[in-house]
Amino acid sequence: MKKPKIVVIGGGTGSFAVLSGLKKLNCDLTAVVSMVDDGGSTGILRDEFGVLPPGDVRQCLVALSLSTSTMRSLFNFRFSRGSLRGHSFGNLFLTVLEKITGNFRNAVSEASEILATKGRVLPVTFDNTRLFIKLNNGSLLKGEKFLDSYDFSKQKIGRVFLSPKAKINPEVKKELKEAQLIIIAPGTLYGSLIPNFLVSGFSKALSSSKAKVLYVCNLVSKQQDKGFFLNDYVNELEKYIGKDTIDYVLFNKKKPPKDVILKYKKKGEELVRFKAGNIGRVKIIKADLVSEKYKKSANFKDLIRHDREKLAKEIFKIL
Amino acid sequence: MKKPKIVVIGGGTGSFAVLSGLKKLNCDLTAVVSMVDDGGSTGILRDEFGVLPPGDVRQCLVALSLSTSTMRSLFNFRFSRGSLRGHSFGNLFLTVLEKITGNFRNAVSEASEILATKGRVLPVTFDNTRLFIKLNNGSLLKGEKFLDSYDFSKQKIGRVFLSPKAKINPEVKKELKEAQLIIIAPGTLYGSLIPNFLVSGFSKALSSSKAKVLYVCNLVSKQQDKGFFLNDYVNELEKYIGKDTIDYVLFNKKKPPKDVILKYKKKGEELVRFKAGNIGRVKIIKADLVSEKYKKSANFKDLIRHDREKLAKEIFKIL
Repeated sequence: MKKPKIVVIGGGTGSFAVLSGLKKLNCDLTAVVSMVDDGGSTGILRDEFGVLPPGDVRQCLVALSLSTSTMRSLFNFRFSRGSLRGHSFGNLFLTVLEKITGNFRNAVSEASEILATKGRVLPVTFDNTRLFIKLNNGSLLKGEKFLDSYDFSKQKIGRVFLSPKAKINPEVKKELKEAQLIIIAPGTLYGSLIPNFLVSGFSKALSSSKAKVLYVCNLVSKQQDKGFFLNDYVNELEKYIGKDTIDYVLFNKKKPPKDVILKYKKKGEELVRFKAGNIGRVKIIKADLVSEKYKKSANFKDLIRHDREKLAKEIFKIL
Repeated sequence: MKKPKIVVIGGGTGSFAVLSGLKKLNCDLTAVVSMVDDGGSTGILRDEFGVLPPGDVRQCLVALSLSTSTMRSLFNFRFSRGSLRGHSFGNLFLTVLEKITGNFRNAVSEASEILATKGRVLPVTFDNTRLFIKLNNGSLLKGEKFLDSYDFSKQKIGRVFLSPKAKINPEVKKELKEAQLIIIAPGTLYGSLIPNFLVSGFSKALSSSKAKVLYVCNLVSKQQDKGFFLNDYVNELEKYIGKDTIDYVLFNKKKPPKDVILKYKKKGEELVRFKAGNIGRVKIIKADLVSEKYKKSANFKDLIRHDREKLAKEIFKIL
């Protein structure tokens, strides 16, 4: 049997579980990565060196790496003190590669070789662009970083857009066209998922593909999409990629322990609730998708996570 | 024929030409590297992260690398702006590897694999130590970095020593014992060469080796050894490693163009002059060893350099 071609759309931690799970199975993998991150270490590097955002690409490269754990740890290492504090070493690595090789495309390709990735990691665009967030009251937030810092409890997001305009990476177009399955990974709705669709040529490439389109719904909502039910996510995504684009949804039916849920609630985040509403056309698959490792962690966001093996198993059933 | 075992002692740029030249020939190569650097990027990393000095090890790793030019450029890349200004990316690489793998020995070994080095790079010691410089008037300079910044025109160096004491890396001991040729590379006399000999066990290992010992004399003297003739270098080295240790000296006989020499003079640096003096026992080989690439460079120190091929050719004649 020919290896199935799978494209995973997202960026950052959202794509990590999907890619790490699929990496171990017999398939041809492509990770398409959004390019609007401008916070933290990535933001500093963009400002100081004029490079494209390395952070999300780095996470996908590590997810697909077949290299030693040392190489993966190296790329994920974060400096915790001194003048380098907050910087991810992998981000610096990509920044220096971009400077040496002359462009981000070559940098990603070199890093892929160094990390021995299975499949390919493709930035959705090579144009230097920023995410703009228009709120319902008309205010405009300039930069993806506001998704983490702005208080969305009073004003919801109306629409997001890119400025300047960015056009699709031709390799992404090709992979979307040839794919059998296109997965919209779990991830920050307005930060990691929709920014891919905002790139010129993306929706057209998606709609002209014969691939099945699967959306792996988030486990937890963030403040920016608080109160969203499953159908709200689907509708919001389709506002940008076109109605009736999504064929399948994977939705977690296993509840994490109560004390874990409570910890999230205290931070204003809650489990995404099920409601099919007006998305009756979509085939919804409910399954136990959650990782059992509710490990105590300094960063409590590490607690409720998708299980990579469970995800990969359910995804392969759809193929 | 069994590959000849060659050990090159030095650190930093001094060893670079010797190692780069020998890398292309059929031999078993070991670079022994001094571990007292505490200036610049290396100094900051030692202070902020408590790591061992990565700078000289990095240069030797790059010299022995059989990897692509991109990997070598990566390790030599220096940030020229922003919060990372002045840092060498290769130094950061080794620092992070030391943190991840738990010690500097593992870090160097991982980096050797990543860079596909021919032969091995061995820190002369794994003890965290500093160079102390005692001047003739009794003053004490605490740190190798003073070799670059102190004005030695009024006070010459009396003696240098390490504090705390450091003991020899057992692998260095082994390689010295088994070598057929031990080369003291060109390099900063008190910063890169003698600090190797100051490590406990080094002189003993050297004197118990049956290897021929070759000293490749510097082309240019620095302020700290201004006015030194060839025999002064030999005598000063033997003050630390024991009299009659050096068997051969390679001395450059080709003069660089006058305008280049003049540029050096303006910075207080001059060509090392020949005088055999009281070192009649040593076999002195005079040869054209200088690189013809007198390229215009922002960093004028790049101008008078050893030619790696010429060096390697002369070294192989001694074997």
